Amino acid sequence: MSDSEESVSGSLAGYPTLHRLLAAHLPPAALKEANRLLRGYNGGDLVEELQLPERLVSLAKNSNFDLQGYSFTAAREEMREPHVVRAALVQNKIVLPTTYPFLEQKRAIMSRVETLIDAAASASVNILCLQEAWTMPFAFCTREKTWCEFAESAEEGESTKFLQGLAKKHNMVIISPILERDENHGNILWNTAVVIGNHGNVIGKHRKNHIPRVGDFNESTYYMEGNTGNPVFETVFGKVAVNICYGRHHPLNWLAFGLNGAEIVFNPSATVGDLSEPMWPIEARNAAIANGYFVGAINRVGTEVFPRPFTSGDGKPEHADFGHFYGSSYFSSPDASCTPCLSRCQDGLMIVDMDLNLCRQVKDKWGFPMTARYDKYAHLLKNYVREDFKPQIIKDPLLP
Amino acid sequence: MSDSEESVSGSLAGYPTLHRLLAAHLPPAALKEANRLLRGYNGGDLVEELQLPERLVSLAKNSNFDLQGYSFTAAREEMREPHVVRAALVQNKIVLPTTYPFLEQKRAIMSRVETLIDAAASASVNILCLQEAWTMPFAFCTREKTWCEFAESAEEGESTKFLQGLAKKHNMVIISPILERDENHGNILWNTAVVIGNHGNVIGKHRKNHIPRVGDFNESTYYMEGNTGNPVFETVFGKVAVNICYGRHHPLNWLAFGLNGAEIVFNPSATVGDLSEPMWPIEARNAAIANGYFVGAINRVGTEVFPRPFTSGDGKPEHADFGHFYGSSYFSSPDASCTPCLSRCQDGLMIVDMDLNLCRQVKDKWGFPMTARYDKYAHLLKNYVREDFKPQIIKDPLLP
Repeated sequence: MSDSEESVSGSLAGYPTLHRLLAAHLPPAALKEANRLLRGYNGGDLVEELQLPERLVSLAKNSNFDLQGYSFTAAREEMREPHVVRAALVQNKIVLPTTYPFLEQKRAIMSRVETLIDAAASASVNILCLQEAWTMPFAFCTREKTWCEFAESAEEGESTKFLQGLAKKHNMVIISPILERDENHGNILWNTAVVIGNHGNVIGKHRKNHIPRVGDFNESTYYMEGNTGNPVFETVFGKVAVNICYGRHHPLNWLAFGLNGAEIVFNPSATVGDLSEPMWPIEARNAAIANGYFVGAINRVGTEVFPRPFTSGDGKPEHADFGHFYGSSYFSSPDASCTPCLSRCQDGLMIVDMDLNLCRQVKDKWGFPMTARYDKYAHLLKNYVREDFKPQIIKDPLLP
Repeated sequence: MSDSEESVSGSLAGYPTLHRLLAAHLPPAALKEANRLLRGYNGGDLVEELQLPERLVSLAKNSNFDLQGYSFTAAREEMREPHVVRAALVQNKIVLPTTYPFLEQKRAIMSRVETLIDAAASASVNILCLQEAWTMPFAFCTREKTWCEFAESAEEGESTKFLQGLAKKHNMVIISPILERDENHGNILWNTAVVIGNHGNVIGKHRKNHIPRVGDFNESTYYMEGNTGNPVFETVFGKVAVNICYGRHHPLNWLAFGLNGAEIVFNPSATVGDLSEPMWPIEARNAAIANGYFVGAINRVGTEVFPRPFTSGDGKPEHADFGHFYGSSYFSSPDASCTPCLSRCQDGLMIVDMDLNLCRQVKDKWGFPMTARYDKYAHLLKNYVREDFKPQIIKDPLLP
């Protein structure tokens, strides 16, 4: 499928994002109100657009990726300096058809991602996150084991070494979600985010906590529930965590990263329109609000066609693609504001400035942590996981 | 303030809801896409409009309330009959100025609410929920204790007796959120939802679990954290629960109602535009998705002017109102679909049909409960509430 065909098939009535669709049709006063409701700052102005270098804007145009930049602000405090970091999200298509030799497919994606990371570096980005399983097509829908060949060691794999070089060169923290091959434990697989420090060192890794079993789409065919807890990585630029893909449906997973002190949680994902798109603007944004941190939600983009058709347990005939990955990556803030989304049809780079002081400011204002009554819920969950748990039900005594 | 003035001040660039604003300006294909993203059914059609009796439509027009009806559908199962219930939300303004004698104020609201409940009954509504503290102006912003006079016994108060009559007459479960006076415990106050069965019997009550301390707005001036847990009320029509107002910011509170088996959770609220409006379409909808139940979110409507001005700890001069309560009540479904909102400016009645079988269907499809790993989080929360809790932080070893 050519780029122009795909940008039509992936578009919203001809527009690459909802926000651009609204901007094209609504008169100014109506647009202002729609924007206030859909991505508004509490009681204040919208998230501002960021001025990006002219050279970068040209590069995005010439290299065919959607470039957007915004700036989340916070109040000036008396007792702390501002803690502004520049964070970025990358979304991208696979580059070569899935019938090409695997190594060529991987290297072609690496080359494209290098262009996007270099672009981010030219804007002095501090922390950047790639999409889930970024080195490969999202082949889990096929249920074929051949795609396991894309898995790599988190510490020693080619993608890690490649990004270590870029991280060091650009003084950038890079989060690299890959399919991990664990040679030290029977060659099993994990769905893992490798966190690479700004000196090119591997700080650590997080393995996806919750595995989708959605309809017939069961990723536990490929890897199992992570065993790394909910770590927060303290980097020179801030405290970051990674909630991989399906983990975004689990409020407890988001909560745990918050309790451990995260200031930015990335949610690298791979999900298609029919499955999840109406939920996409809801879950990451709710997590940012509820837990008092920034969230960067990333989804891959494009339609990936596989060599051998497969069925999906939904009564429909066999098909060779899982659906359209709708991109739409965005950042959300603890104050309920959010950026527009990146394109549904194009590779993209989203750059935002955020003052991490906002996390504590919002907690002070809204008081969620102090009013949370965690002890009650610790008690409830402890009882809930017991076989003899009895739900708290008050039955109408007049019922039979 | 007259009705026409208020409908202007409360409108979105002249429209009573976002969905009507979009419908007025977007061409059909663009509107379809916007609706799919903003309130779409997973992989399917939008929530359908419900055909309501012509007499009821006329009544809404003549009695000046916004009437909307929708129908959530579910798949037909082989082993269970459909379990369709008709549920309703009521949002309303206070009727008399806050300077009027308290009893007159309360009775005027009761009379207006009777009109709305009778209207719901004429469409054979099974379960109906009123807004938070519906018998009174939302006076907590004043911090004056005189408004405590509006509190009533949950079991014996005038509002309960009044609704018991209506519930019996209409064969309707009615949920009545009031300020409760607890005479048996030192005359203390609670923020309570009374659940009245379809025979007019009081099935039980739930007391608000989480108390806002937002900026200077501290409702613990009036009442304290509830002591009733997270009960689910088993009624003849289905299993319902009540998450009162600020509890919507707490994912654990939503979770607890789900673990106890709720099929519909109502969220009677009172909140103003500058404070929370961008969050309003997010939190209840996220809760429905994450927990596999329907949510009915209710917010009062109008601007309530108090006799004596007050400050709000935000550096602004004293003022006599808390802001505009933006209504916008809506229902959300576990499959991520939702209704449009009721008006920002008018009293309203939202009626929906829902097949409660959908709750289990969505859980089967998405698999959230089976992938939730509750045991891990039970352990985390147990540790978290200990004074010696150490967050799981992996520090970059190259940091000083």
